[in-house]
Amino acid sequence: MPRISHKAVRMPASPIRKLVPFAEEAKRKGIHVYHLNIGQPDIQTPEPALNAIRHFDQKVVEYSHSAGMESFRKKLAAYYQGLGANITHNDILVTTGGSEAILFALMACVNPGEEIIIPEPFYTNYNGFAIEAGVKIVSVTSTIENGFALPPVEEIEKKITSKTRGIMICNPNNPTGYLYTREELEKLRDIVKEHDLFLFADEVYREFCYDGREHFSVLHLEDIEENVVLLDSVSKRYSSCGSRIGMLVTRNKAVYESALKFGQARLSPPTFGQVAAEASLETPQSYFDGVYSEYVARRDYLVEALNKIEGVFSPKPGGAFYTIARLPVDDADTFAQWLLSDFSYKGTTVMVAPAAGFYATPGLGKDEVRIAYVLNVEDLKHAVACLEEALKVYHNNI
Amino acid sequence: MPRISHKAVRMPASPIRKLVPFAEEAKRKGIHVYHLNIGQPDIQTPEPALNAIRHFDQKVVEYSHSAGMESFRKKLAAYYQGLGANITHNDILVTTGGSEAILFALMACVNPGEEIIIPEPFYTNYNGFAIEAGVKIVSVTSTIENGFALPPVEEIEKKITSKTRGIMICNPNNPTGYLYTREELEKLRDIVKEHDLFLFADEVYREFCYDGREHFSVLHLEDIEENVVLLDSVSKRYSSCGSRIGMLVTRNKAVYESALKFGQARLSPPTFGQVAAEASLETPQSYFDGVYSEYVARRDYLVEALNKIEGVFSPKPGGAFYTIARLPVDDADTFAQWLLSDFSYKGTTVMVAPAAGFYATPGLGKDEVRIAYVLNVEDLKHAVACLEEALKVYHNNI
Repeated sequence: MPRISHKAVRMPASPIRKLVPFAEEAKRKGIHVYHLNIGQPDIQTPEPALNAIRHFDQKVVEYSHSAGMESFRKKLAAYYQGLGANITHNDILVTTGGSEAILFALMACVNPGEEIIIPEPFYTNYNGFAIEAGVKIVSVTSTIENGFALPPVEEIEKKITSKTRGIMICNPNNPTGYLYTREELEKLRDIVKEHDLFLFADEVYREFCYDGREHFSVLHLEDIEENVVLLDSVSKRYSSCGSRIGMLVTRNKAVYESALKFGQARLSPPTFGQVAAEASLETPQSYFDGVYSEYVARRDYLVEALNKIEGVFSPKPGGAFYTIARLPVDDADTFAQWLLSDFSYKGTTVMVAPAAGFYATPGLGKDEVRIAYVLNVEDLKHAVACLEEALKVYHNNI
Repeated sequence: MPRISHKAVRMPASPIRKLVPFAEEAKRKGIHVYHLNIGQPDIQTPEPALNAIRHFDQKVVEYSHSAGMESFRKKLAAYYQGLGANITHNDILVTTGGSEAILFALMACVNPGEEIIIPEPFYTNYNGFAIEAGVKIVSVTSTIENGFALPPVEEIEKKITSKTRGIMICNPNNPTGYLYTREELEKLRDIVKEHDLFLFADEVYREFCYDGREHFSVLHLEDIEENVVLLDSVSKRYSSCGSRIGMLVTRNKAVYESALKFGQARLSPPTFGQVAAEASLETPQSYFDGVYSEYVARRDYLVEALNKIEGVFSPKPGGAFYTIARLPVDDADTFAQWLLSDFSYKGTTVMVAPAAGFYATPGLGKDEVRIAYVLNVEDLKHAVACLEEALKVYHNNI
């Protein structure tokens, strides 16, 4: 039997996946599991998107252009222009989810064996795409004490070697919920410019910024227009994860043409998803206002409630719909599994994502978990009560 | 400005893409272009698929399981069982088109720098996926004189080195339309078994086999169950190219688990496409009978008409909806461009795919073109008449 590849061996299993069988077993025992572990929002997909799908009237489900439907790209350009960014439809490549945008960006810009710097903790799937592209991730640590702010410039510059080709950020951040400030982005601009690096920015949570703060996009950074590669998606903005529609946006023509060649190899992004996503751009502001209020209420409740539990600390995230909480446990991995396999409270338990998997540096984040506030406040109340009880029981048992 | 990657530099542009501006210019001049250059069928997508999309009733367009929806995979398993193959839903990974199945297979099974052997001419996008995965394609030549049959075993074995990890075939073949016989597949089985290689088989045209011949799938090969990785798609079978739904099918558990990890990194295949594809499996046999008769009529007309043109030779393909024709020209690339830029007949012209791009060996296929019979017979008649006239004019002019 032939061997699998080294890449396959090195591909990490998701840190959440190994908990899945325990969650399934809990459900089989009749226990209700509050899923705080995933980035699948419970928010309804906007009606214009669903309507467009229900009225799909083509007789043949054809490939689209490899860069995506032109009508869609023109509307996307108008969307970015509305953010104050000087973007045309020729700067936009529609991808199969933000995932493919990340993979294309790495493959187009970074040679196998070369490095990109990412503040940790970071979205675990960056590891997967880096392995696929043969790229090495070099982490620079952000800390829960600082609310996961950008690490000091000196710390970032220390990591730059002759192999460094770029810096990647996620803003607002998954898994921390941290919203980078304009000043932080300008610091990154200076580093990127000085060292002639790419700045890869995953802004799929752009619309989820709270407390009246505005999102400052990498598209607004001056003087590094050709260094910036934006990775975007409709998944979170329009609660359309399953549509698998993302975008790679760049004003660097060489990068764009390269990414398009990868796009041509896979022929086209999904047609149905593009039809839904194009219609999503007609979503009324009232939808976003409703979503905004809902997430602010959830965050406000969740973070306050978490911090009231003895020994628990969570910074107040400025964006996205995640927070990282430090728990009074030695090993959040063991605790998360125990929650599913050995605990229940009033017939319920909680599933959280152990945070160690979001760090590249071994040993970091062992007492932290990522909590996604993708449940309504009522459910969050039950979930937090359950978590509080669990921590008491856990301490008495070990 | 930072450089792009070596992979990006090496990614080939599609051999057809450079003709596109000339086709657009011809259309601007009011010339009707018969598109014989693409694999986008004009056949209608089955009604059950379109109906399922029009009745999509989920409120949130969620991610599916990374391996694909279980209900869909179970129906797919039944489909493969119907072909006589011992396949369960746990052997099936739903991918974003056959394209992603190819990429996952290469990344899961072949290390960067290692080799796979492919009979040329072959589907050009294999080059793109091989570059993405860092895999080297070693070609073994099949010839138009032999109707593009499998090259002799000795020729294949000559290409096997310590770096060879697999053999890839496309059956029925794109671009040649050749349908491999059971004997040919058994020869491949013996080679694969002896040298402990993977056998990657792209069978997306499985349903398109003519003259009463049955398709013999690699899934039927005994004794190499763990060597076989099947790459499949609903794109051609159900004329649903834009759905972007394919499958990687393997009974090799290590390969399956590896491919699933790549699948988890990109979260899920498209939800809408899966809904349509699952419903497609309910398509009545009458649909396929209609499609079959249509393609047989097209092929029979096309190949006979081509062979009547002086100096033109096309073997009669046993499957798919392509044929490769040898034309009495020095350079089919130049001719194909000339057809679009300098010729018209009764206000029409023809776009074909120069075949050199399907060969890995430089210089091969220079006087050949791939013709896709994705137009109805009436249109094919006009297109062939146009091609015949073009060849006369071309010869008088040069």
